[in-house]
Amino acid sequence: MAYSHYGVYMEQNLSLFYGLSFLTVVIAFAFALYLYLWVKKMKVQNQRIDEISKLIKKGADTFMNREYRILGIFAAVVAVIIFLILPQPIWEGQILSNLSMALAYIAGTVLSAIAGKIGILVATLSNGRTAESATKGIKSAFLVGFRGGAVMGLLVVGCSLFGVAAVLMITGDTTILLGFSFGASSLALFAKAGGGIFTKTADVAADLTGKVELGIPEDDPRNPAVIADNVGDNVGDVAGMGADLFDSNVAAAVSALVIASSLAGGELNNISMVFCYLLLGLLASVVGIATAKVGKNGNPTHALNSSTYVTTAIFLVLTAIATAIFPGFSWRIWGASSVGLLVGVIIGITTDYFTDDTKPIVRKVAHASASGPAFTVLSGVSYGFISALPAMIGIAVSALVAYKLCAPIGDGYAIFGIAMAAVGMLSIVGMIISNDAYGPIVDNARGLAEMGGLGEETIRIADELDSAGNTVKAVTKGFSIGAAGLTVISLLGAFMSEVNEALVEAGKEIITGFDIMEPTVFFGILIGAVVPAVFSAMLILGVDRNAQRMVVEIHRQFNEIKGLKEGTSSPDYDKCIDIATSGALKELVPAGLMAILMTLAVGFIGGPEAIGGFLLGNIVSGLLLALFMSNAGGLWDNSKKYVEAGAEGGKGSEAHKAAVIGDTVGDPFKDTAGPSINTQITVVSLVSSLCAAIFVALSIF
Amino acid sequence: MAYSHYGVYMEQNLSLFYGLSFLTVVIAFAFALYLYLWVKKMKVQNQRIDEISKLIKKGADTFMNREYRILGIFAAVVAVIIFLILPQPIWEGQILSNLSMALAYIAGTVLSAIAGKIGILVATLSNGRTAESATKGIKSAFLVGFRGGAVMGLLVVGCSLFGVAAVLMITGDTTILLGFSFGASSLALFAKAGGGIFTKTADVAADLTGKVELGIPEDDPRNPAVIADNVGDNVGDVAGMGADLFDSNVAAAVSALVIASSLAGGELNNISMVFCYLLLGLLASVVGIATAKVGKNGNPTHALNSSTYVTTAIFLVLTAIATAIFPGFSWRIWGASSVGLLVGVIIGITTDYFTDDTKPIVRKVAHASASGPAFTVLSGVSYGFISALPAMIGIAVSALVAYKLCAPIGDGYAIFGIAMAAVGMLSIVGMIISNDAYGPIVDNARGLAEMGGLGEETIRIADELDSAGNTVKAVTKGFSIGAAGLTVISLLGAFMSEVNEALVEAGKEIITGFDIMEPTVFFGILIGAVVPAVFSAMLILGVDRNAQRMVVEIHRQFNEIKGLKEGTSSPDYDKCIDIATSGALKELVPAGLMAILMTLAVGFIGGPEAIGGFLLGNIVSGLLLALFMSNAGGLWDNSKKYVEAGAEGGKGSEAHKAAVIGDTVGDPFKDTAGPSINTQITVVSLVSSLCAAIFVALSIF
Repeated sequence: MAYSHYGVYMEQNLSLFYGLSFLTVVIAFAFALYLYLWVKKMKVQNQRIDEISKLIKKGADTFMNREYRILGIFAAVVAVIIFLILPQPIWEGQILSNLSMALAYIAGTVLSAIAGKIGILVATLSNGRTAESATKGIKSAFLVGFRGGAVMGLLVVGCSLFGVAAVLMITGDTTILLGFSFGASSLALFAKAGGGIFTKTADVAADLTGKVELGIPEDDPRNPAVIADNVGDNVGDVAGMGADLFDSNVAAAVSALVIASSLAGGELNNISMVFCYLLLGLLASVVGIATAKVGKNGNPTHALNSSTYVTTAIFLVLTAIATAIFPGFSWRIWGASSVGLLVGVIIGITTDYFTDDTKPIVRKVAHASASGPAFTVLSGVSYGFISALPAMIGIAVSALVAYKLCAPIGDGYAIFGIAMAAVGMLSIVGMIISNDAYGPIVDNARGLAEMGGLGEETIRIADELDSAGNTVKAVTKGFSIGAAGLTVISLLGAFMSEVNEALVEAGKEIITGFDIMEPTVFFGILIGAVVPAVFSAMLILGVDRNAQRMVVEIHRQFNEIKGLKEGTSSPDYDKCIDIATSGALKELVPAGLMAILMTLAVGFIGGPEAIGGFLLGNIVSGLLLALFMSNAGGLWDNSKKYVEAGAEGGKGSEAHKAAVIGDTVGDPFKDTAGPSINTQITVVSLVSSLCAAIFVALSIF
Repeated sequence: MAYSHYGVYMEQNLSLFYGLSFLTVVIAFAFALYLYLWVKKMKVQNQRIDEISKLIKKGADTFMNREYRILGIFAAVVAVIIFLILPQPIWEGQILSNLSMALAYIAGTVLSAIAGKIGILVATLSNGRTAESATKGIKSAFLVGFRGGAVMGLLVVGCSLFGVAAVLMITGDTTILLGFSFGASSLALFAKAGGGIFTKTADVAADLTGKVELGIPEDDPRNPAVIADNVGDNVGDVAGMGADLFDSNVAAAVSALVIASSLAGGELNNISMVFCYLLLGLLASVVGIATAKVGKNGNPTHALNSSTYVTTAIFLVLTAIATAIFPGFSWRIWGASSVGLLVGVIIGITTDYFTDDTKPIVRKVAHASASGPAFTVLSGVSYGFISALPAMIGIAVSALVAYKLCAPIGDGYAIFGIAMAAVGMLSIVGMIISNDAYGPIVDNARGLAEMGGLGEETIRIADELDSAGNTVKAVTKGFSIGAAGLTVISLLGAFMSEVNEALVEAGKEIITGFDIMEPTVFFGILIGAVVPAVFSAMLILGVDRNAQRMVVEIHRQFNEIKGLKEGTSSPDYDKCIDIATSGALKELVPAGLMAILMTLAVGFIGGPEAIGGFLLGNIVSGLLLALFMSNAGGLWDNSKKYVEAGAEGGKGSEAHKAAVIGDTVGDPFKDTAGPSINTQITVVSLVSSLCAAIFVALSIF
């Protein structure tokens, strides 16, 4: 690095942004602590609610502890491997780099784990309190639910900004950041895919034995799987979602930083800009969260959406101001990030069109159900496929526009523009997570209000809160999918930067792209494209196998525990939680390993070109399948609810039976496989970037 | 072209191969005529069989005539458009080229139509005769069924070789050949996708009203949809399949020829080599067909497979001899084509593993059905996804090996190697079609034997013939999918040749590839990838809508025709056939237009680079979805049959009901959407190649 006068200025500038980042993190953490204490000071007076909340919390802890124990072993092994061979084999490179990389990896897992733990803590703390607050009206109940979720949102984003800034400030090496990001991804894979298997295992087993075999209602405490089922909601939706978005957020930041550092001439400025956008996003989320409230008879959907729009507007204004103030911050990049945000909103709206029961698609699927379950499935699959169209076009257009906007700045800025579009979109992730975590909290609160006998008016309020959670989910999901799409594209850019660094060190010619017509690239594309399909299939089959195991255990308990059927003795809830836990982790490992081993195989056979193709194929088919599965799943779920609300003959009709079958098919689509595909893509992208130098040195072709 | 001494030799050589091609076509046609007369001279003595055969034939004619009428209008419009703007706008280029292109297009549609017509003729001629022959034993019955199919196989391949050779000999311009290929594709789109909608419309409507509502058995003559249902088998499996393979075969030959003509220095030699491989493939098929027979108690599966292996071996030996004799025929290219064949066989074997009921996968899905239909669907979807893995790896590896083998020959030969791998694989397509057409003939024969009351022993023999048809289907399907995969890759190569020709004419720099990191390419990839998903969804929804229309008509007939329920008066079969026909064509057009308009939109927005990406995305996700849908559909079908044979409680059990639902979901997957995707890919590839010059001139970016 040349230390010209301007260089010194840029150095100072970067230090300024490190400082501002840490300051923002402190503000966010302090605000989160305030919200946490605010929620905690409410008292839970209803005995039954308190009891059930505690059972759910205990179950979630069982899963988390078990998961973290296995993850600890896994992370230790990976850390040792990283220490030995990354970024370069220890016998060839510098031991300090390898040690930093291994430590950064561990830091990534630990910070993500903390975010997940806190999420569960807050969610299980807030659900009962939200239920109780609902007795006093919607205003306070909304605040309890929303602020509970906001604690998680602020902590996830705060942790990720803190981690990224600290690792880069200490090491000054963006390649080490990839290790940090890989740590976050490892954990996200366990949390999201493992949690997804857990939750659907319990759901399916509880339904199969309880509703179908024994004819006892859902949530009946005699069913040994019932607590596991409730735990699953928290484990999958709260902890899993938190780890997933922590991962996406870190990956977006890291890929932008890796690309920024490769831009000759403007490295420091660009790195400063990335941090500037990240911290302003967190700040905007703090303001957005602080302003969220509903009036006495207000509309919670409106409150959630308007605080999202407030956050978005604040972010756009603040980044515009920053662009105006700091020389070297480009308006083109600001434009790229704004386009990203806009497209995120559009994707949200179109997703909503396919999964909202006030729109025609859900009703068509409900109507098709009247002809039998095959038509529920066929129409859901068809509309699920079609639903991918607007999102894919949106991602394609935003990538194209971001690229074209930023290409004139200079070499390499085009792909940096795409990365910044992803960063911009994910900058308001604090708000997004708050809205997302609000969903399961008020969902649980509704169940608790019913079980605790809080009366009809309270249940009505809880229902309204719950329904708002479902509605905003579509918009937040749009952001997540759009951001994930752009992030993985920029991860492809980050991979190319890493490959070229390795090629330069090896004294070879750098590559300027990946040509489809190159056979190794094409080879990689075909294999990369099939991996998300196989990965999804393995997770879905894993849910099925694991559910069968739990069914066996439930049968055992009913046979061996006397008085269980009569309700005079209690089932062994922990045993079911334990089965769901160990089974989930057992089923997850082969799927994760398959994806990683395929990456390594393609890399060793075809070298970096093949991996470029592999990542592309993986991204394209991964996005398509993730959109298809998530949206089809949501569509079936809402069609079932629509029928249950009285359409097509209502509950108990043939249409209802068919809709239930559609919903059961959709469950592992939308809660296990669909949302795990993003993590799978991130994991293989990071493995590729980390192993870039090895592929350069050792590939066959 | 420089006419050196060697050049003159090459010219003579090419004339020789044109001559040999026409000679081979004459041999094949003569042999087909012999087989046709051989089948025809058998007499159908059973009155009932004769009657039903004729009804089926009449229905098929209704569909074909209606389809050809619409296709005629469509083709006329397209021919006019082609005349006006292709290969160059008529006001800029030469009128003769445009006229040739339009005429070549029409020739493609007409030859394909003839092949389809003859297929229906022979199939409806052979099914009754096969049934009657079965009374005399398996030996003669097998021959009747097989030779009926062989007539179609020989004619399809003969027509395609004749058309390609004639068009190229007359015009001397490979670009005009693209018009011929596009004609074949247009018709294949109507025949395959339209036939696919027809057959499933009738199937679903017949089942819904007959079995479910009225409780009358399948194939009951009181059901107005019953003849439409039988017609559907012929229209979808025979005519559709014939047009589809005609299309693939022409596309493979044409893309190889387009690429060959772009290879500086060896054009004529390479063109000669393509024709040499094509004609030797047809010759090998003639020999293979002539040798096919079973002993008195022989095994028909064995007979079918061994004649495929005989054809393969003869082809390999003949092409090796040709390579040894003719200077300039490269052993490397022979190697590429051999690798293609080998991989085709491997794909066939792996497909078989996923869909054969003696293998574990079908049994696992049957077992999952015992837990309810959601598990039938989930396990089928999962294994369907996994089944794509070996085929995708096979296609990827064969493309890589073919490319690497041929790259050392010179610039551009690598992609020519891939094209020749596809040509090699499709060269034995005469044999493949014979085996494929054998399937529906013996399937119909089995039904006719039952309806004609030919006795148990005859039905047993027909059953054995039918089962052999199902088993070899897996292997032939492997060839088709593998060949389609390689063909579309070489179509991508052909597109690049066309683009470069246009760029040279426009005085612009040629492109050497499509870089993933280019935003326009990436934009195209994302959009191209989602098109097959939307296309499939539109076809599936089309089946559903069309079936609903037919159900209305069936209800009308039962209400208005007196004595229909009692069997004292006949239903109006033609009305149902008419609804299936017009509905199929109505539902097909928007799907086909969507694919074509998306191609044009991407081309006009992003230019040739975006189209390169678009084709890649289309190929990759198209192959993945086609494999998934075809295999999942086959898997569900065979799981149902496995349960019906007594597993998991057998007929009438809960597992059976679930398996039937799986089969209903799988029907439009495997018979409508899955097999139409290949045609969709071919159509957009050819549209792209044809419009290459326009995209070069007029795109926005």
